[in-house]
Amino acid sequence: MKEIVAIVRINMMNKTKKALTEIGVDAFFAQEAFGRGKGLVSSHLLQGAKKGYEEAIELLGEKDRLYTKRMVTVVVPDEQVEDVVEALIAANKTGKPGDGKIFVCPVPEAVRVRTGEIGEKAIV
Amino acid sequence: MKEIVAIVRINMMNKTKKALTEIGVDAFFAQEAFGRGKGLVSSHLLQGAKKGYEEAIELLGEKDRLYTKRMVTVVVPDEQVEDVVEALIAANKTGKPGDGKIFVCPVPEAVRVRTGEIGEKAIV
Amino acid sequence: MKEIVAIVRINMMNKTKKALTEIGVDAFFAQEAFGRGKGLVSSHLLQGAKKGYEEAIELLGEKDRLYTKRMVTVVVPDEQVEDVVEALIAANKTGKPGDGKIFVCPVPEAVRVRTGEIGEKAIV
Repeated sequence: MKEIVAIVRINMMNKTKKALTEIGVDAFFAQEAFGRGKGLVSSHLLQGAKKGYEEAIELLGEKDRLYTKRMVTVVVPDEQVEDVVEALIAANKTGKPGDGKIFVCPVPEAVRVRTGEIGEKAIV
Repeated sequence: MKEIVAIVRINMMNKTKKALTEIGVDAFFAQEAFGRGKGLVSSHLLQGAKKGYEEAIELLGEKDRLYTKRMVTVVVPDEQVEDVVEALIAANKTGKPGDGKIFVCPVPEAVRVRTGEIGEKAIV
Repeated sequence: MKEIVAIVRINMMNKTKKALTEIGVDAFFAQEAFGRGKGLVSSHLLQGAKKGYEEAIELLGEKDRLYTKRMVTVVVPDEQVEDVVEALIAANKTGKPGDGKIFVCPVPEAVRVRTGEIGEKAIV
């Protein structure tokens, strides 16, 4: 069982939801996240900050350097991981910086509160 | 050390907090999450979407298909995991769809920022 | 590859962002979290609640017992974990309760949506 976490653009959420539904993933949840990728920071600013220039460091710390994103979390059996990752990429890839990232993490146990079912039975 | 993540109903948060306190878990955090479980989608709609009907897929993508939930995160020593899961189930089980899910994930390391304590000392 | 999650004070976010930038971590994301640590609950109240006093349990359940925090998430190669944890401690340690906690979790796989790069190439 794996947790797949995707950080995607807000305006890609509808496409993402449809993509998950189309491959049979009905359960997931989404959260607000404020993020920054490598591409979202001016390289000059970044070099300046790394060299210790106060002003560059100050600018990097500005609130508007973090962009509002959506974090989508899906927990699926191991054999579905590849399909989900492919669907998330297909739905979110524009080829421009800011397309987001996908992380896959182990989830040794899951429980459905209503029935007490555990393991993969809890998530499918 | 394990991270226990529960997706529960908003109006169950007080009960959940009390349940955790009663078993001696004082530290935890909660976040807003928008989610969807299997039971929250009309099965006809879902079948239609899987068969590729545009209208069904469109409806599934609607914003109101995601419900506001609370995500509660607790990090505890391994031997406390069972107690926490049982307490979360007891507090949140109504028997109706939407009761939520609980996931258990490994956390190899924890640090308390104030003291620098690491491992289980950081969380108890 | 590891996910480092830090629960910190809201007003420490700028310092935290600068600290991460200074050690060369350009990509991360932040989320709102409502949390409670051990130190944030009156010990009398807590003892009362554990003994089952209704009033104490009621007070613990109050909404204002959860404090607004920021949750910062960074995914880095294994060899960068120590630097990140040290930077997060340096930026957030005041010595007072509420400084926060840091958790380190395994992330077996990462994908950059734009390029399809996987593993550490996706995060550096």
